[in-house]
Amino acid sequence: MTANEIVHRMYQNDAFSQWLGIKIEKVEIGAVELSMRIRSDMTNGFGIAHGGITFSLADSALAFAANSQGRHAVSVETSISHFKPLQLNDLVRATSVERHLGKRTAVYEIQMHRNEIELVALFRGTVYRTDKLWEK
Amino acid sequence: MTANEIVHRMYQNDAFSQWLGIKIEKVEIGAVELSMRIRSDMTNGFGIAHGGITFSLADSALAFAANSQGRHAVSVETSISHFKPLQLNDLVRATSVERHLGKRTAVYEIQMHRNEIELVALFRGTVYRTDKLWEK
Amino acid sequence: MTANEIVHRMYQNDAFSQWLGIKIEKVEIGAVELSMRIRSDMTNGFGIAHGGITFSLADSALAFAANSQGRHAVSVETSISHFKPLQLNDLVRATSVERHLGKRTAVYEIQMHRNEIELVALFRGTVYRTDKLWEK
Amino acid sequence: MTANEIVHRMYQNDAFSQWLGIKIEKVEIGAVELSMRIRSDMTNGFGIAHGGITFSLADSALAFAANSQGRHAVSVETSISHFKPLQLNDLVRATSVERHLGKRTAVYEIQMHRNEIELVALFRGTVYRTDKLWEK
Repeated sequence: MTANEIVHRMYQNDAFSQWLGIKIEKVEIGAVELSMRIRSDMTNGFGIAHGGITFSLADSALAFAANSQGRHAVSVETSISHFKPLQLNDLVRATSVERHLGKRTAVYEIQMHRNEIELVALFRGTVYRTDKLWEK
Repeated sequence: MTANEIVHRMYQNDAFSQWLGIKIEKVEIGAVELSMRIRSDMTNGFGIAHGGITFSLADSALAFAANSQGRHAVSVETSISHFKPLQLNDLVRATSVERHLGKRTAVYEIQMHRNEIELVALFRGTVYRTDKLWEK
Repeated sequence: MTANEIVHRMYQNDAFSQWLGIKIEKVEIGAVELSMRIRSDMTNGFGIAHGGITFSLADSALAFAANSQGRHAVSVETSISHFKPLQLNDLVRATSVERHLGKRTAVYEIQMHRNEIELVALFRGTVYRTDKLWEK
Repeated sequence: MTANEIVHRMYQNDAFSQWLGIKIEKVEIGAVELSMRIRSDMTNGFGIAHGGITFSLADSALAFAANSQGRHAVSVETSISHFKPLQLNDLVRATSVERHLGKRTAVYEIQMHRNEIELVALFRGTVYRTDKLWEK
């Protein structure tokens, strides 16, 4: 399967990414760009996006980017720094960068921008790469 | 406001924690215990709970535990290690431990157990403590 | 090789752990306890222990604990929260807890105490477990 | 004090950074570039640089970059991913990027390259910014 087919297949089965309203903007081998808009049911007690919302967007980007390399990959350790709170209706864009692609592990960084200009959060994720291939 | 009042007030305004079906099991000053059940709309393309779901539960526990100390606190950096995938209908319990309470920053660790026995994920979060008090 | 033999063999070849003056206090399968005293050549521009010193102690504890399971293990991702600055002559004790032991990855938490009572830093590390055994 | 004066003052008092043989290659407001060569007393039981060595270089870069903004800053949470082992005599270069500069917290990313081309480790650090100014 191509990187594009893998990511779209993953998305079709990913109920939570669909609930989040994630849109797949771009797919390359080892890289994706996703976007999402903050809805009222994504906010927390402070009236801003719950920290889990930005994390979830980044975690989907990690899974899509890592698996787009053609082998099943599972997340082992992830971290996120939140810089700015996201407000209702903000558009968030997550862009992945493959920092390391090893035989068994790989590391991706996901930058999240508000309205395409302001860096609101930074995420790093390590995955374990299994031997299982993505096949039709 | 008491720790209990703060946490329940936060929860009442927290649309996403409500969507997650989070239950507040216990509140003490600086500590909470939350639980949640994995629903089908929380799963990802592998048929297990999306990584963002466990993170969100832990992030709510972090916010509740940190704010229960009486001052508004905001998350600055969080990380999570996933050990075991959660399946549909699994019951997850998040228990917080206050590792450090400083004047300006505090650190909490959240352990997540499946069915009360198996450690499935470990989360650490650092918050910045503002001067703003929780008041009625 | 036993856990104890592996850890002592590693230490004998570990020039930097020796420079740090690390003492091996206890070894069990998957767990170690190390101690170290802060010297003046370990301090930074603020007159306290450089952050890299506590990290290095914890990183040695991670390597020893993970390898004591009998297979060569390499660190993939580590993080540390510093709570209290360490002063000259402080005695630090690092105690490891095995949080997860999987086929391919394992996660250890290292707690660092000053003078055996005060938690000064918290470390979490993920290792990749190779197939290579520790053999005489 | 200028950024350059702050960083050099810090380095002059930083016994451990001096032991590491760190060289200050470049200083700008909020950014530094450091270099270092792996010596035999920096290696571990596997004959490669101890993980604490690369961390320490990055941690010095974090401290220098954050303090170069003119206010005393202290590290609160740091994480590092190691991609490639460093060998004896390897030259490592650490370059900082200021990802967020808030009133109270700031986040820096440090990239470490071997021989100027190969990314060997990635570090992220959060600091707390005190009110204390760097003054002559």
